[in-house]
Amino acid sequence: MEILAIFRALPPGEAQEFFLKLGIEQQAELLLALPSNERRLWFRLLDPDDAADVIQNVPSEHRAALLRLLDQPTRNEVTALLCYAEDVAGGLMSPRYTRVRPDMTVAEATSYVRKQAAGRVETIYYVYVLDCGQRLLGVLSFRELFAAAPDRQIKDLMHTDLITVTDKTKQEKLGRLLQKHGLIAIPVLDSDGHMIGIVTFDDVVDAVAEETTEDFQKVGGSEALDGPYLKIGLWDMLKKRAGWLTALFLGEMLTASAMGYFESEIARAVVLALFVPLMISSGGNAGSQASTLVIRAMALGEVTLSDWWRVIRRELVTGLSLGVILGTVGLIRILAWQGVFHIYGEHYLLIALTVAISLVGIVLWGSIAGSILPFILRRLGFDPASASTPFVATLVDVTGLIIYFSVANIVLGGTLL
Amino acid sequence: MEILAIFRALPPGEAQEFFLKLGIEQQAELLLALPSNERRLWFRLLDPDDAADVIQNVPSEHRAALLRLLDQPTRNEVTALLCYAEDVAGGLMSPRYTRVRPDMTVAEATSYVRKQAAGRVETIYYVYVLDCGQRLLGVLSFRELFAAAPDRQIKDLMHTDLITVTDKTKQEKLGRLLQKHGLIAIPVLDSDGHMIGIVTFDDVVDAVAEETTEDFQKVGGSEALDGPYLKIGLWDMLKKRAGWLTALFLGEMLTASAMGYFESEIARAVVLALFVPLMISSGGNAGSQASTLVIRAMALGEVTLSDWWRVIRRELVTGLSLGVILGTVGLIRILAWQGVFHIYGEHYLLIALTVAISLVGIVLWGSIAGSILPFILRRLGFDPASASTPFVATLVDVTGLIIYFSVANIVLGGTLL
Repeated sequence: MEILAIFRALPPGEAQEFFLKLGIEQQAELLLALPSNERRLWFRLLDPDDAADVIQNVPSEHRAALLRLLDQPTRNEVTALLCYAEDVAGGLMSPRYTRVRPDMTVAEATSYVRKQAAGRVETIYYVYVLDCGQRLLGVLSFRELFAAAPDRQIKDLMHTDLITVTDKTKQEKLGRLLQKHGLIAIPVLDSDGHMIGIVTFDDVVDAVAEETTEDFQKVGGSEALDGPYLKIGLWDMLKKRAGWLTALFLGEMLTASAMGYFESEIARAVVLALFVPLMISSGGNAGSQASTLVIRAMALGEVTLSDWWRVIRRELVTGLSLGVILGTVGLIRILAWQGVFHIYGEHYLLIALTVAISLVGIVLWGSIAGSILPFILRRLGFDPASASTPFVATLVDVTGLIIYFSVANIVLGGTLL
Repeated sequence: MEILAIFRALPPGEAQEFFLKLGIEQQAELLLALPSNERRLWFRLLDPDDAADVIQNVPSEHRAALLRLLDQPTRNEVTALLCYAEDVAGGLMSPRYTRVRPDMTVAEATSYVRKQAAGRVETIYYVYVLDCGQRLLGVLSFRELFAAAPDRQIKDLMHTDLITVTDKTKQEKLGRLLQKHGLIAIPVLDSDGHMIGIVTFDDVVDAVAEETTEDFQKVGGSEALDGPYLKIGLWDMLKKRAGWLTALFLGEMLTASAMGYFESEIARAVVLALFVPLMISSGGNAGSQASTLVIRAMALGEVTLSDWWRVIRRELVTGLSLGVILGTVGLIRILAWQGVFHIYGEHYLLIALTVAISLVGIVLWGSIAGSILPFILRRLGFDPASASTPFVATLVDVTGLIIYFSVANIVLGGTLL
């Protein structure tokens, strides 16, 4: 129990700060390592949302015992939080926020808020105005309350153009709302419109950063790692990477079959084989560009499922243009090399044409396949970030070969083939 | 001037909120579109950090005129901010924060803070304790000030374990510090230790999210887009993508040269060509995994330049293991296909061996090249995210071909070759 040893070695004044700054998993580990008479003291230090997270991180047989360590009101709050997934507002929210009534004066509200600040309220950036039925009527920044004349009434000062979320709102959307409106906290309402908590920006920022890292790792063709790159064990690292790499390898084996299908063409015109890597990688690169742009735009909420047709139309034009550019460069390259080295034989012009035409088709197809795959994955309920650049490249490789050799058969039929 | 028309159509009560919620570029556009007698009113609504951003976003001939619209103290603040790059603390900070003296009582400090809250202070999440020489002595959360007994002295309540940054601190580091310590704002000190402003989380969150999007787009092999995917013009989109795609295409042309170098081997054993796409894509996929993991770890500060040797050692072990796994799968695949279809001729065992050994080398090399390229780019002063998956794939393709055909020459020499 290494963490317990560190904890014991701390001077008494620093133990509390150390404990509160630990990650959830380490807090859980430390709590379980402590003798039960100390466990209550430390567990009660946690805010309800953090306590709920800790409980979700201990083996299930310890959960009931930990819950019993809390006083009854806190236990109710924590139990309510436990019913939510960790990535929705209900699971991220804190039930402890500052509330006032609309008919209070500023002086009354200030003194009421001061009592709450001394007690169990987590944050006082905003003061929420609730009616007797727990319905949210308005909000006031703490600064506004503080700067207002003492005899004014809250209901005359509060803002009623409210930004709220439900307990089911996903963390990505929370992040976008907080960012768009420049808020530090956002109120959470249940399905009947009662205020049940607030989500503060720091919880969401952590959650969104974690999500982004996962997206990044998936786009590169790994599973999401469970920890920092240098800290994760080699065996775990291998497991996260070998699965996808093997799956992609199995998919890529179809290229060997596709090549086998065109084996006689290659035997008759070995020169065709020279451009195979160039062909398939161009499709893969165009696909990588398109898929990462779409995946990130989806994560930012700039592109939704219903935009699929707009995206295809864009990629049709972009892919075609990119294909024409690469096709032209390829044409020039072959003609130039032929002019200098004379390596492509008497039919060099037809070969150059085959390469150029194939590039237009392959880059166009790569752009469309790369941009549409994230939509298909999301529609099927998977993470669009799984449309990783290696996945797209593999998908495009087989079709790229078919395009290339089909064009070759048409252009070179009767001469080389 | 579409934005001006929208602005004019708003009811008077909503114009102010509309203006303040606009992005910097739109604020700049609107200000320039307004007649000069109205321009002053609206420009003065902005906080100094936002005013500085607007000035940086108007054509240079308008800058001096805009600056003259401000009152003298604000003009000084804005001019100071204009000297900083937009991605360092000095350029992100606000000079308006809440300050108190250490020898004030809580009651005195509260009344002093109240005056500041009514005036030009941007945020009152924290109260900073400064001595007469503008040196930062301590900090107090607003909640702590608010909940404390009125007769206590600030110096007995303040925290002196300060997290501070300098005006040169980069936004990525600001983001990590805010997140790690759960802060809403962080004080900025100049080189002499005087407090010159605060950076609040919302400015940093925006900046970091933008940076992450750029990383994402670069990793996919594009230049960073200047706007949302669906909003950016087709011509701009093409420019951002065609450059890299063409550069990669030119690099990838080396594969045609490499293939040409081994043309006689291919002519003698066409079966070798069948596995070329499989070989190079396996190297590219392994490289993609490694480079994205390292790029993200660098962006999160988990991996720094000095870790390069640790990363290489990790990738040596991981890459070798992944290579052995894929090599084994490849070996089994060829033997199985041979058993069923008899398509690889009498030397199928040697071919299978060539493929398996090459895969070990190619995957190992892909992992190492992919992980080390971000280090090299950063060391040379480039963005490590430019080690995009297509870039790594292109780099690995040529070397992959050389590895494959060299192994073939050794294993198949005397039989097929």
